[in-house]
Amino acid sequence: MAPHDLLTALRDQNPLVHCITNYVAMNIAANVVLAAGASPAMVHAPEEIAEFTPICGALTINIGTISTPWQASMMAAAATASAQNIPWVLDPVAHFISVYRREAAQQLLAQRPTILRGNASEILALTGETGAGKGADSGDSVDAAQGAAKKLAAQFGTVVAITGPVDYLTDGTREAQVSGGSSLMPQVTALGCSQTALMGAYAATGPAFDAALAALAHFKVAGSTAAQRADGPGSFQMHFLDALANTQPFELAQVIR
Amino acid sequence: MAPHDLLTALRDQNPLVHCITNYVAMNIAANVVLAAGASPAMVHAPEEIAEFTPICGALTINIGTISTPWQASMMAAAATASAQNIPWVLDPVAHFISVYRREAAQQLLAQRPTILRGNASEILALTGETGAGKGADSGDSVDAAQGAAKKLAAQFGTVVAITGPVDYLTDGTREAQVSGGSSLMPQVTALGCSQTALMGAYAATGPAFDAALAALAHFKVAGSTAAQRADGPGSFQMHFLDALANTQPFELAQVIR
Amino acid sequence: MAPHDLLTALRDQNPLVHCITNYVAMNIAANVVLAAGASPAMVHAPEEIAEFTPICGALTINIGTISTPWQASMMAAAATASAQNIPWVLDPVAHFISVYRREAAQQLLAQRPTILRGNASEILALTGETGAGKGADSGDSVDAAQGAAKKLAAQFGTVVAITGPVDYLTDGTREAQVSGGSSLMPQVTALGCSQTALMGAYAATGPAFDAALAALAHFKVAGSTAAQRADGPGSFQMHFLDALANTQPFELAQVIR
Repeated sequence: MAPHDLLTALRDQNPLVHCITNYVAMNIAANVVLAAGASPAMVHAPEEIAEFTPICGALTINIGTISTPWQASMMAAAATASAQNIPWVLDPVAHFISVYRREAAQQLLAQRPTILRGNASEILALTGETGAGKGADSGDSVDAAQGAAKKLAAQFGTVVAITGPVDYLTDGTREAQVSGGSSLMPQVTALGCSQTALMGAYAATGPAFDAALAALAHFKVAGSTAAQRADGPGSFQMHFLDALANTQPFELAQVIR
Repeated sequence: MAPHDLLTALRDQNPLVHCITNYVAMNIAANVVLAAGASPAMVHAPEEIAEFTPICGALTINIGTISTPWQASMMAAAATASAQNIPWVLDPVAHFISVYRREAAQQLLAQRPTILRGNASEILALTGETGAGKGADSGDSVDAAQGAAKKLAAQFGTVVAITGPVDYLTDGTREAQVSGGSSLMPQVTALGCSQTALMGAYAATGPAFDAALAALAHFKVAGSTAAQRADGPGSFQMHFLDALANTQPFELAQVIR
Repeated sequence: MAPHDLLTALRDQNPLVHCITNYVAMNIAANVVLAAGASPAMVHAPEEIAEFTPICGALTINIGTISTPWQASMMAAAATASAQNIPWVLDPVAHFISVYRREAAQQLLAQRPTILRGNASEILALTGETGAGKGADSGDSVDAAQGAAKKLAAQFGTVVAITGPVDYLTDGTREAQVSGGSSLMPQVTALGCSQTALMGAYAATGPAFDAALAALAHFKVAGSTAAQRADGPGSFQMHFLDALANTQPFELAQVIR
């Protein structure tokens, strides 16, 4: 399914996306999903998972501010989504900073997410390789993590997206790269987390590889547009939300190679 | 008390508003209350309710990201407010998505909030009717929920506000409608939740029906102003906060009928 | 270390700052730290403290939305930082509103933070004096709290910053004042909390008194710049983030006396 058609379909269908994400990202991720044309729902009570996850078009899980109560909900939601063939996206934020977080990420990964999104340091570290990641920011190049991405894609049957100056996407066989965006993007907190939420919206709309590719392209297009108008990270964030809403479907193909 | 006088009084008195709200809304709701001229306080520890709620001008409760620990604080705060005649506002976000949430909303409603605010789907579902709501977004028209609003107002002795393209307000006897705003408002997350917080600020300043009406009008006026300057949902949010701060008291009456 | 050199060093070193802060501040505090040139990490799971705090350049603790689970993490992180000589900043938000919060603040203070930051009402109340604070907003003048600041600095061996229209800083011996900023700053929620996070970034870069002074100056400079461009609190916040990123090191000395 072409990126052009996916964005059109996303706006037509306005899919409901169940987001279990971190406290930093809650607001901006919801605004990103809304601006793109889908409907976010931040719900995490364990009592609600069995009823709510199945009525959503997709689920996204981000471990940015994980703690044990949230981890239980994440595991339950991932299991529910996998059992019911609801596409879901895993964002293993900074999983290498502690034993607790590393194990939480591996347990979620073992549930076989439809899409796995991370920066280069996060993807590298999921295969046990030692990267140069620091907190939520990547210290490794996207190129250096391509091998790890292919390995994870094959091992877990997942589409893997590495985001960075040039994004890399693979399902173990197919590959794509997406360029554009802006150096201001890492200066706005939780934009990566927000992209994970947006990938859920696209995954509710079409096949996983195509969906992840369209989500990457949508971000790069909007990032480039916003950068032309921004005077710094504050105005960039505002223009970025506007640009996500105003992106035309035909623009997505222009940043993919 | 006229809307004009309520806004003037709100800015003069700068009432303290105890907000127990959801993670998505925390920041924007606080900014909305501050921009309007009141003082928000996001406090939810159960140890603090008995001391803190009574010193506030109003309480607002929003169940958007409810879980059992928060539910206990919400119930304690609602009981404290009701016992001490402190006005309080209930926002039963998407209560129809799970048994857990539906019961939580009904338990809070049984505490007889001073004002109940929701979208059409939420108000309809509180009476047991089946609406077309999806997540936090309404799938029903405001008109379709007017009967439910009157019924709830009479049953629980509360003022009921249904927000939508044209807002509807009733205390079971009196009715009012508020028009204006912008189609961009539902594209910014948690604006409804933020309006609930603002209603608390107004409820600290004057009688419940008048307060809810002024809060609805303030939002519509600011929304219309912001829409004229916005290029999308990102810039809309920024202009909306500016407009809330810059709204002149005389403007409120212009959107009420 | 001069403010000029500290800002240059902060941007060169991009220190990792462990922030345990409140739900309202999470996003804006991270954006403030990023805009200034450092790397924020919002991590609070008790399982992660022993591994994560020691690899950070500084720790900041803000009790704005404290509850018992978070309090345990705050205490563990403060103890870890103190034991390992990692600079840490305490922000005792509205600690006077309840017995629970007052005791939590005193327990953290007893861990001897490197820097203590609060508004005048918060600093006054830490010494047991009764101020006019209301929720998170100060009801007392900075001047009225200078004696309390000196007393706390001597008693706990900490640098104390009182923020307000003119900031006051002391380590019990040295004193400084920082002017500038804008009356719009208190109309944007969690800017004080965000300054605490930024102080952590500076404290990771140089000596405590100098670091706190540079952080205060950076805020005042950016606040003045943003105020010239703002039409209200919404646009102020955007311009403020831009201005934090665009502040030139030489500007900091201009607001200090």
